Amino acid sequence: MPRSALQEKLYTVIFGTNTPAGKRFDMVLIYMICLSVLAMILESVDRISDHFGGLLSVLEWTFTGLFTLEYAVRIYCAPDRWRYMRSFYGVVDLLAILPSYLGIFLSNMNYLLIIRLLRVLRVFRVLKLVKYLSEANILLRAMSMARRKILVFFSSVLVLSTIFGSLMFLVEGPEHGFTSIPKSVYWTIVTITTVGYGDITPQTVVGQIIASAAMLTGYSIIAIPTGILTAELAAEMQRERSNRLCPSCTHPGHDSDAVYCKKCGHDLSKKPEAAVPDQPPGQSG
Amino acid sequence: MPRSALQEKLYTVIFGTNTPAGKRFDMVLIYMICLSVLAMILESVDRISDHFGGLLSVLEWTFTGLFTLEYAVRIYCAPDRWRYMRSFYGVVDLLAILPSYLGIFLSNMNYLLIIRLLRVLRVFRVLKLVKYLSEANILLRAMSMARRKILVFFSSVLVLSTIFGSLMFLVEGPEHGFTSIPKSVYWTIVTITTVGYGDITPQTVVGQIIASAAMLTGYSIIAIPTGILTAELAAEMQRERSNRLCPSCTHPGHDSDAVYCKKCGHDLSKKPEAAVPDQPPGQSG
Amino acid sequence: MPRSALQEKLYTVIFGTNTPAGKRFDMVLIYMICLSVLAMILESVDRISDHFGGLLSVLEWTFTGLFTLEYAVRIYCAPDRWRYMRSFYGVVDLLAILPSYLGIFLSNMNYLLIIRLLRVLRVFRVLKLVKYLSEANILLRAMSMARRKILVFFSSVLVLSTIFGSLMFLVEGPEHGFTSIPKSVYWTIVTITTVGYGDITPQTVVGQIIASAAMLTGYSIIAIPTGILTAELAAEMQRERSNRLCPSCTHPGHDSDAVYCKKCGHDLSKKPEAAVPDQPPGQSG
Amino acid sequence: MPRSALQEKLYTVIFGTNTPAGKRFDMVLIYMICLSVLAMILESVDRISDHFGGLLSVLEWTFTGLFTLEYAVRIYCAPDRWRYMRSFYGVVDLLAILPSYLGIFLSNMNYLLIIRLLRVLRVFRVLKLVKYLSEANILLRAMSMARRKILVFFSSVLVLSTIFGSLMFLVEGPEHGFTSIPKSVYWTIVTITTVGYGDITPQTVVGQIIASAAMLTGYSIIAIPTGILTAELAAEMQRERSNRLCPSCTHPGHDSDAVYCKKCGHDLSKKPEAAVPDQPPGQSG
Repeated sequence: MPRSALQEKLYTVIFGTNTPAGKRFDMVLIYMICLSVLAMILESVDRISDHFGGLLSVLEWTFTGLFTLEYAVRIYCAPDRWRYMRSFYGVVDLLAILPSYLGIFLSNMNYLLIIRLLRVLRVFRVLKLVKYLSEANILLRAMSMARRKILVFFSSVLVLSTIFGSLMFLVEGPEHGFTSIPKSVYWTIVTITTVGYGDITPQTVVGQIIASAAMLTGYSIIAIPTGILTAELAAEMQRERSNRLCPSCTHPGHDSDAVYCKKCGHDLSKKPEAAVPDQPPGQSG
Repeated sequence: MPRSALQEKLYTVIFGTNTPAGKRFDMVLIYMICLSVLAMILESVDRISDHFGGLLSVLEWTFTGLFTLEYAVRIYCAPDRWRYMRSFYGVVDLLAILPSYLGIFLSNMNYLLIIRLLRVLRVFRVLKLVKYLSEANILLRAMSMARRKILVFFSSVLVLSTIFGSLMFLVEGPEHGFTSIPKSVYWTIVTITTVGYGDITPQTVVGQIIASAAMLTGYSIIAIPTGILTAELAAEMQRERSNRLCPSCTHPGHDSDAVYCKKCGHDLSKKPEAAVPDQPPGQSG
Repeated sequence: MPRSALQEKLYTVIFGTNTPAGKRFDMVLIYMICLSVLAMILESVDRISDHFGGLLSVLEWTFTGLFTLEYAVRIYCAPDRWRYMRSFYGVVDLLAILPSYLGIFLSNMNYLLIIRLLRVLRVFRVLKLVKYLSEANILLRAMSMARRKILVFFSSVLVLSTIFGSLMFLVEGPEHGFTSIPKSVYWTIVTITTVGYGDITPQTVVGQIIASAAMLTGYSIIAIPTGILTAELAAEMQRERSNRLCPSCTHPGHDSDAVYCKKCGHDLSKKPEAAVPDQPPGQSG
Repeated sequence: MPRSALQEKLYTVIFGTNTPAGKRFDMVLIYMICLSVLAMILESVDRISDHFGGLLSVLEWTFTGLFTLEYAVRIYCAPDRWRYMRSFYGVVDLLAILPSYLGIFLSNMNYLLIIRLLRVLRVFRVLKLVKYLSEANILLRAMSMARRKILVFFSSVLVLSTIFGSLMFLVEGPEHGFTSIPKSVYWTIVTITTVGYGDITPQTVVGQIIASAAMLTGYSIIAIPTGILTAELAAEMQRERSNRLCPSCTHPGHDSDAVYCKKCGHDLSKKPEAAVPDQPPGQSG
């Protein structure tokens, strides 16, 4: 089935971000999502929902209607409908409207609460906003480079928390609030991350010594993810700055002392030939 | 209207910071601002205001009088009066004296409190002090470079806080202190920033698991602004260093303690010869 | 005594990690250790041990049996049995099974608690997992380089804590919860590491000023281990990068994604020719 | 007055650290200081001082006697007695013994407490230990380089704390625990440093919003000292590594691309002449 001109036009506006109309559509969408999230937040405040419950309910249904319309149009104009519906944003777009409709048929209070939990996911759509800020790319690339190192770090923190938590359970015991190892591990995470609520605190001398060790550990190992990310970020910014593109294969990120392209072996010192057009840095959003 | 010699002289002393008199004036001003802020702080302590309330009131009015005189002289000697009055410091200078006068006519206690709020802005004038320390410039430049990255980071933190806050509101509910989503978001910020007052704490097992996730998230993402700023600061310090050029061979990158050019052995402390034009390092503010 | 073929085969599987069988054995072992730790953690929860106490006890003894078998086989196939038994993992392997057996003969409750404390050490065996992740090596090398600097830092923190703790004991005294210098030092560690439980807080004005100084100190010196580790990690990553030499021109510093030498354009993916000896990058563990 | 051989010998042992005897003396001294500090700490614990009060008192006087003897010998063998007595360690050495003697004549409890406060200074002598660890030098140099930047940072934190504290005093007021501006500033420092005791917490919505802003500020600006120190430390380690000494004036820290000494202008590429002996790197402690 060939795509109609309307489908093409809608696709450019709704999915694209390069045309002025596409940009405007996305900005309006972001404002609407923020407003609907705000309405949901305000509804949770008793004093506000008592006075403005009706207005908020109308707003809620207006937004649900508009997002439903948007979802329908997205399906209509997507080149590959099934692929869009299965994509991350396709699923989130559906989940952002579904709870409101389910709320009509299933009036069980408890169940509604769980549905609202899904509604919170609507906030994720706001994250689209991130892609407009090119700075976020450097951050995301550096974090992606640091991915495995951060994973090793988190595993170590969890192992450490289990050890410290088990120790504290043995030393302090249920009479001082450390009622089980999971609760002690929770306390250890509260302590190692230097949050320190103070709802459970060690009472014995040995417990306070172990707690001090846990605090000093947490206070020191915070240096590890910071160190990892800083080093990756510095390297990434260095690469961004020296953004030398290969004139033959347009591969970016060559060091300032590179003579040959590290991807295709092209001589970087040579002037690009006439056949190869001078391509502007192809920055993907 | 040509400017009088008095206006010129006052302008050099009050607005300028290059002459000895101008420097002395600014130092005296800073001391006076600090003293007046101190007086305001002490006045808020019940025991002190009961005993020294009269003295503090006299001090308060003395400082208000002096600052009013200063404001009048600044307007008198400014080359472009209207421009000064609309400038940031012009407005702050006015706001630093206005509340005291308004306090005479409007004795409503509640209103006075809001006026005092403005009086606090007087502290901003102390920030002028920052510009005297050249080190602050590198910091400010690095922070200005990192501006957009930090903004992306803060948006993400706020989105994360909203998600975690909504989850906690659903899981813990009003009976455990999470009375509304805004309050839950407040709790999430207290937790993610690792402050952890402990006035609201999760009581259910699921709530404690989500809280642990929020803590570990907060504990890890602190690495992001640190990484951004460190990378920018290192680059900025590198640039500052490269700004020192040899007047003979123009080789850059001399350390601040270097006496001879590391490339050609030229004496860096000597005045450049006539043949070599005196190129000041183009430091942008 | 010559080693039998069975011993050789078992050694490759149990101690080695290079063969597929060896890798599979280690993965199964890690899963089993995690499961047995999980069983121990669940047993500590009253509600779970009341309902599933029997099942958990069976699991506990199954794991103890399997780990005992593993320990016996390790001793059987080790080339130097005595050396294995005295090695770190040899001792941990023994300690991971001993408490269960000791628990049969010594039913004294108090004593059992101490035995369980040793059982927690079983978690250390999970740490073996770290060595499979090559990323951990860079982290460990950087931490090993920073070892002495971190030690100096920790000594300073402990000296500072003693000073601040003694001061607070003198200023606040037993009536405000600072019952002894050790307790005050504990409070100082809670404060300096920015954990801040709030179970003990300064009540006097002087105490709050000293506490503020301690907080600002702790807030600032966190920069030191972070700075140390970041600098070491950046240097280590630089070194890792420099380790990739071009086999043709031996130019170092190729990125991990480089296919061609940036200096001479040589294909880095090709085997080095006969004339150029195959020098493996001398990576020290 | 010519110095006797005994004076010379004692000087080498007590003040020097290069001879084996000098090193041994310093190590013994450090152990003794640690022990005497430990005795003082234990004395503050009621249960211990009730049982071992006599023993601790004897220890206390033994250490006081030994430190008095040491102080006398130091004065005896110092080349310039008056200069030693006025030096930092000379004053600390005196203050470390004085309180015990003053405690005999002045039995006023209140006064004794202040004397004990001085006694805590004895801990500073332990800091001498730092100079044995060469790693500390890099740390201290980096911190000294970052000195002015850190000062700017601290001033900003204090100004910010005053502003946030004043705002909170106006918004929350005495009825919620913010009894005066100094107390509110104390609360702000507890919050900005992410310590968060929770003894005072905002109760109003506006107060919680301002508190959230203060937390996010504190959470972010921690990046600043870390960034400063990391950048300085990386530069310092770079300099340490490239420890190129000038063969003429032995000035260290030349960049790897330096051709001339930055201190004396000596040609670094030339071989050192016979007249200039090959001096080993003169590392000052």
